[in-house]
Amino acid sequence: MNIKELKISVCKANLDLVKHGLIILTWGNVSGILRDEQLVVIKPSGVPYDNIKPDDMVVLDLEGNVVEGKYNPSSDTATHLELYKAFPSIGGIVHTHSTYATSWAQAGCPIPNIGTTQADYFSGDVPCTRDMTKDEVEGNYEKTTGEVIVERFNGLNPAHIPGVLVKNHGPFSWGKDPYEAVQNAVILENIAKMAFISLQINPELTMNNLLLEKHFSRKHGPNAYYGQKN
Amino acid sequence: MNIKELKISVCKANLDLVKHGLIILTWGNVSGILRDEQLVVIKPSGVPYDNIKPDDMVVLDLEGNVVEGKYNPSSDTATHLELYKAFPSIGGIVHTHSTYATSWAQAGCPIPNIGTTQADYFSGDVPCTRDMTKDEVEGNYEKTTGEVIVERFNGLNPAHIPGVLVKNHGPFSWGKDPYEAVQNAVILENIAKMAFISLQINPELTMNNLLLEKHFSRKHGPNAYYGQKN
Amino acid sequence: MNIKELKISVCKANLDLVKHGLIILTWGNVSGILRDEQLVVIKPSGVPYDNIKPDDMVVLDLEGNVVEGKYNPSSDTATHLELYKAFPSIGGIVHTHSTYATSWAQAGCPIPNIGTTQADYFSGDVPCTRDMTKDEVEGNYEKTTGEVIVERFNGLNPAHIPGVLVKNHGPFSWGKDPYEAVQNAVILENIAKMAFISLQINPELTMNNLLLEKHFSRKHGPNAYYGQKN
Amino acid sequence: MNIKELKISVCKANLDLVKHGLIILTWGNVSGILRDEQLVVIKPSGVPYDNIKPDDMVVLDLEGNVVEGKYNPSSDTATHLELYKAFPSIGGIVHTHSTYATSWAQAGCPIPNIGTTQADYFSGDVPCTRDMTKDEVEGNYEKTTGEVIVERFNGLNPAHIPGVLVKNHGPFSWGKDPYEAVQNAVILENIAKMAFISLQINPELTMNNLLLEKHFSRKHGPNAYYGQKN
Repeated sequence: MNIKELKISVCKANLDLVKHGLIILTWGNVSGILRDEQLVVIKPSGVPYDNIKPDDMVVLDLEGNVVEGKYNPSSDTATHLELYKAFPSIGGIVHTHSTYATSWAQAGCPIPNIGTTQADYFSGDVPCTRDMTKDEVEGNYEKTTGEVIVERFNGLNPAHIPGVLVKNHGPFSWGKDPYEAVQNAVILENIAKMAFISLQINPELTMNNLLLEKHFSRKHGPNAYYGQKN
Repeated sequence: MNIKELKISVCKANLDLVKHGLIILTWGNVSGILRDEQLVVIKPSGVPYDNIKPDDMVVLDLEGNVVEGKYNPSSDTATHLELYKAFPSIGGIVHTHSTYATSWAQAGCPIPNIGTTQADYFSGDVPCTRDMTKDEVEGNYEKTTGEVIVERFNGLNPAHIPGVLVKNHGPFSWGKDPYEAVQNAVILENIAKMAFISLQINPELTMNNLLLEKHFSRKHGPNAYYGQKN
Repeated sequence: MNIKELKISVCKANLDLVKHGLIILTWGNVSGILRDEQLVVIKPSGVPYDNIKPDDMVVLDLEGNVVEGKYNPSSDTATHLELYKAFPSIGGIVHTHSTYATSWAQAGCPIPNIGTTQADYFSGDVPCTRDMTKDEVEGNYEKTTGEVIVERFNGLNPAHIPGVLVKNHGPFSWGKDPYEAVQNAVILENIAKMAFISLQINPELTMNNLLLEKHFSRKHGPNAYYGQKN
Repeated sequence: MNIKELKISVCKANLDLVKHGLIILTWGNVSGILRDEQLVVIKPSGVPYDNIKPDDMVVLDLEGNVVEGKYNPSSDTATHLELYKAFPSIGGIVHTHSTYATSWAQAGCPIPNIGTTQADYFSGDVPCTRDMTKDEVEGNYEKTTGEVIVERFNGLNPAHIPGVLVKNHGPFSWGKDPYEAVQNAVILENIAKMAFISLQINPELTMNNLLLEKHFSRKHGPNAYYGQKN
């Protein structure tokens, strides 16, 4: 994949967020990375989704210097860059304010792994970050948001937990490319909604962890057998 | 009906799930059976719904051997086969991760029969299966999922209770053909949503069982009078 | 208006229920009445909404005898007839299983009048009927359902309270014609949803009854000033 | 902008409310003002949204005298006029009965500022007005509704809190023009929904006020850096 193809892919992924109902107004952004070239493509800041085109995308290096593009990059760019630097396995990142995932983030609670829908994609709970301090918020805020996410993943594998809740803010998700990052944003919103309803029905519900491990491993383990062999 | 017609019917039923809003991504599958030929038609595993065609469907015998088709069958195939073997009255099966039915399954609670909407189709609560054991999960998991459903229907008539919740997983529904199985999936999702809301409004609500029996029998009893005579 | 026009109007009103998202499958029916001719037009029983046409509507007299039409009338016909006989001011009736109104009916609770949205159309709470007895359910059930609604309106003006919840069943609404009855079904569903959410937010909420009276009277009182003068 | 352009803008803004799903039936209205001419353009009262055209809009002076238009103005006109007189910074006003914002109004509770989605547009909670008295309701009710909103904003900056809940009634929002007022109505409905869900998940949730201040100031403060420089 080259830069031109990645701009097309990132632009399409942004529009897919709208199609999946995860975005209203300008609340969200998708990026992708070319690992070899160390170049990141991201949506411009505060531009309406209605007419965005591949050439509106902004190209940056990993230090945040704009290499190509006529617009300012998303205000969340520094967060994306931190994640790309810390998580070498990921190729695309999505940030939304989707309703249910954002509500869990506002509640400051991880989304518990209580069903196979979540376990098919996440090997555990969707974690939630800690409160940021005064220095962190008043300093390089967007960069620090990324650092606080990375800190939360200490001991976790981002390839097995493809999303996070930033407390009082909203969800970030990722994947091997922008397309998969969008899919994980869709999944995150749906499991957030179902976990909310499940716990309203039965706050004392129990999980069968055997089932959860089985579902994750049949899709992601060394002997995965879900889907078609390529 | 022959195999060609059943493949068309199963394919259409899969697409109807999307139309009814019960499916996102690849989360669901429909199958149908030709009882005389002992052949089952089912959706392929992990294939997007956008462009599926009748010829993408997979044909199997009741032991799970693929008779026709270029794809792997749904990873839930063994569950479908167990249900066809144990419930001779059914001709189609649907599995989804629809939001409200899945939430009840995650909560581990049967859906109580508290209104005529449910009673028009179900003669009682929508049951929920027990936790599976370590041996069951680590063994032939999908087949055992079917066996645990069948165990739960000990003493129940699957023609009068056309659906079930698999604990921490999601709903299965069925009917005399794939079309009716999809209808019952739609009904299951709606009654799951309404039972959730009703119990939030009034956790102490009371049911009038006389009314529930009346509604089931006016559609399904020996003197049924709902709809048009054929 | 003549019978031909009423059949067109009732058919359109049934389709409007689908358009407003109040109906899935065949769960609902609309009727209208010609008061001078004492003739009622109603949807046929259990017929899909997809292709219904004015000529599919069934015409009956007030005793329930079919005067015209090739189908069986809705199984709820006897309920409609009781309401037309008891409430001379109404010209159209709607029955649905719309999600939130049905959930209140299943909860067995009247919808409290806690906002101007409801007060613009209802002079008070949306009432809920009592449990029916064994004799009532096993006797002429659908006719008795109408009688129990009428009993509940003892002391209430059906022109000022254009809807009711039948316990463990669902809502009926009405108006001066089928169009207005459908509008009141839409309103009933929306106020049911908002009352549910409001009480979840604040179970101790208070109503300002002065405001509720004001809103009802500015639209319906002798000095109404909402809308355009005809 | 002249009157003709403002009528086009106000008409379009009314239709946008429908497009965003904030309006059913005739429940809502948008207005705009030409500050130099002291003329207000508003939707007519009780007219269906389906076919409204710019020439259906009503033009008034700030005392409520109709200057141009064939219809009666919205019954809420006097409320709009009070807000234009008291808040010189605003150029457009929206009133809806959107589901979640209205539910908070019915609950009589301000919407707490618990996430960056709200903080990006509101510098604090969305306030809720007090109960109106008998004299206020029975007097010049719609004008007094405006006065009670203005009273609630004593000490608040309407440019930094672009919306309010009227107790037992519903939301008003505003902006520098009708377009921005509609955007703020969309935002208000979404934050109302997310605050509801968040508090259901965790009634003891905590806010990081540092984060909220940061988000408001990065979009609205003297050193704002969100979006594109014009």
